[in-house]
Amino acid sequence: MVVYGDLQSGNCLKVKWILALLGIEHQWQHINILENETHTPEFLARNPNGKIPVVVLDDGRVLSESNAILGYFAEGTSYLPQDSFLKAKVYQWLFFEQYSHEPYIAVARYIQTYLGMPEERVAEYEALHLKGYKALDVMEQQLAQTPYLVGDAVTIADVALYAYTHVADEGDYDLCGYPHIQRWLKAVGQLRATIDL
Amino acid sequence: MVVYGDLQSGNCLKVKWILALLGIEHQWQHINILENETHTPEFLARNPNGKIPVVVLDDGRVLSESNAILGYFAEGTSYLPQDSFLKAKVYQWLFFEQYSHEPYIAVARYIQTYLGMPEERVAEYEALHLKGYKALDVMEQQLAQTPYLVGDAVTIADVALYAYTHVADEGDYDLCGYPHIQRWLKAVGQLRATIDL
Repeated sequence: MVVYGDLQSGNCLKVKWILALLGIEHQWQHINILENETHTPEFLARNPNGKIPVVVLDDGRVLSESNAILGYFAEGTSYLPQDSFLKAKVYQWLFFEQYSHEPYIAVARYIQTYLGMPEERVAEYEALHLKGYKALDVMEQQLAQTPYLVGDAVTIADVALYAYTHVADEGDYDLCGYPHIQRWLKAVGQLRATIDL
Repeated sequence: MVVYGDLQSGNCLKVKWILALLGIEHQWQHINILENETHTPEFLARNPNGKIPVVVLDDGRVLSESNAILGYFAEGTSYLPQDSFLKAKVYQWLFFEQYSHEPYIAVARYIQTYLGMPEERVAEYEALHLKGYKALDVMEQQLAQTPYLVGDAVTIADVALYAYTHVADEGDYDLCGYPHIQRWLKAVGQLRATIDL
């Protein structure tokens, strides 16, 4: 199995992490987004949407979208509950992550840390913060009620949300006012420390 | 069961549609986004993210995120394959819809049809079209190979992508250059015609 990705990308880190947690052997093929390697003819043949991560299974079948990949590998493991409602709650958080969290938290980080905050994107950067903090508010409210995003145990919802939340400071997000997120980051981070990335 | 939503919203229409396809009885509670009814204290208690649709089950448990709701009701039916890879492909399209399609196709429609194209959003509107057409290109490429987005049968991937693609013209998208999407819209539309919405 080959995974195409860049470990600087939280979306790719999620995949690396679930594979490590589950002990699934794979080859990691580094793709450089900044050098447009997601838009070569070879890459677009695998994922016409031109995004990483992409997984190519041993039989050649291809899967993209980081959170769909998480669901694929986690199915039948403790990281995705069997109970249909709890499973749907995990997916609720995965869709929240892609629609209401990543576009603000990850993109602010990208503009600041990877693009070096170009003048023409400063207004956009400031607008992102309003919505990014709203996403953090939603997480904080849940984590004030439960140890993890869905109940008492780590699921792929935590893996997905951890990916960009733990580097939110690289997009100038201040987590001081979010004690429950801080506690959760520490707990999920300890799990991360047990695996070899 | 109560569903909070607005049938003008494609995200809500998806839920109405899967419930009709599966014959699941429910009460529909209309929520007016333009009058900020998603931000009342009562609504935010159900969904702190302040978005519709929201489903409240008979036992009081709450589920949000349209595509997570689709997955919840479709699990175990023909609309979500049992096979783990095909299921993951359905989720791949559901995440594609929320990240690469809805933010461009639905938002252009919203600016044009619901906000009446205010002067200060014209530049944003034009930028949306570039990315929206890219999403349509990705769909077209798949639908040139398979009758539906995941293989030979309708799944919730088709329900989700149909929701805003069939009203893309309300955001001034021209589907003339997309013969496979047009054929697919007709096929999925026929399925829709068999149910009473």
